Amino acid sequence: MDTHQQGFAKLVTMIDAIEVGMLTTADEAGHMRSRPMATQRAEDGCLWFFTSRDSPKVEEIRKDCQVNVSYSDPANQIFVSVSGLARTLRDEARIRELWTGQAQRWFPEGPEDPRIALLSVEITAAEYWDVDACKMRALLKTNASPSELEAATEHKALS
Amino acid sequence: MDTHQQGFAKLVTMIDAIEVGMLTTADEAGHMRSRPMATQRAEDGCLWFFTSRDSPKVEEIRKDCQVNVSYSDPANQIFVSVSGLARTLRDEARIRELWTGQAQRWFPEGPEDPRIALLSVEITAAEYWDVDACKMRALLKTNASPSELEAATEHKALS
Repeated sequence: MDTHQQGFAKLVTMIDAIEVGMLTTADEAGHMRSRPMATQRAEDGCLWFFTSRDSPKVEEIRKDCQVNVSYSDPANQIFVSVSGLARTLRDEARIRELWTGQAQRWFPEGPEDPRIALLSVEITAAEYWDVDACKMRALLKTNASPSELEAATEHKALS
Repeated sequence: MDTHQQGFAKLVTMIDAIEVGMLTTADEAGHMRSRPMATQRAEDGCLWFFTSRDSPKVEEIRKDCQVNVSYSDPANQIFVSVSGLARTLRDEARIRELWTGQAQRWFPEGPEDPRIALLSVEITAAEYWDVDACKMRALLKTNASPSELEAATEHKALS
């Protein structure tokens, strides 16, 4: 494994038990909001979540795709910051692939429910709190930019 | 108590046991980072923290004061989002007033250590996760804007 893969593997280990992260987005006025999101999958440098396509965050992400997902477990002093580029999309095969009993509670009509969207966060940087050193330490960092994400994903984006 | 005070009182009750929030800031390129911050005080619509004045977040806040502080307790399904306007300042009387044993571990030279700064977040909106309804609910909302914060606090701001 290269350094990037090692960093990603360490990130996955740290957030696996926490599961729910707080996704922070900015609206047009720069006002930042966060809300809990259950992580469905972490793979290939991305985090995957389900969302409702009429949720305000879908519009916020369309206008500004830069987000943060923080994972906190205060009892065990685990704190992780994930910076990334978010997009929302509708990909029925992928929705079925990630479907779980938990998702079913949210969307009782099942994976075919047209309100369901996928929210992916392509990780550009991740850091964790080093308790002994009392500082954040890098887990990984990439050079992805918002414009590259747009070019790569336009065809599947939600309208 | 008016609605705003009630919302603030409820917020304080919710975050009191969690203590450590994740502060999200944006850098000049809009890249969002978060890091754990121990809440020293919540009063008069503001959250107070200690920081080191040479920390990168001080510069990020100087350029863009809009931040989010999220408080998570996944085990008890408590998730709170606090949106606000941050500023950093050096106010020795206030530093001594908020000083604790925990702060002493961070800054062993004590409250006179010139590296210490206060970081306050004037809350503009706060929401919490309603587990039963599966949605965020408002706790409070104000009309404070970044320009008002600047006008009110310029005299004590860090250089």
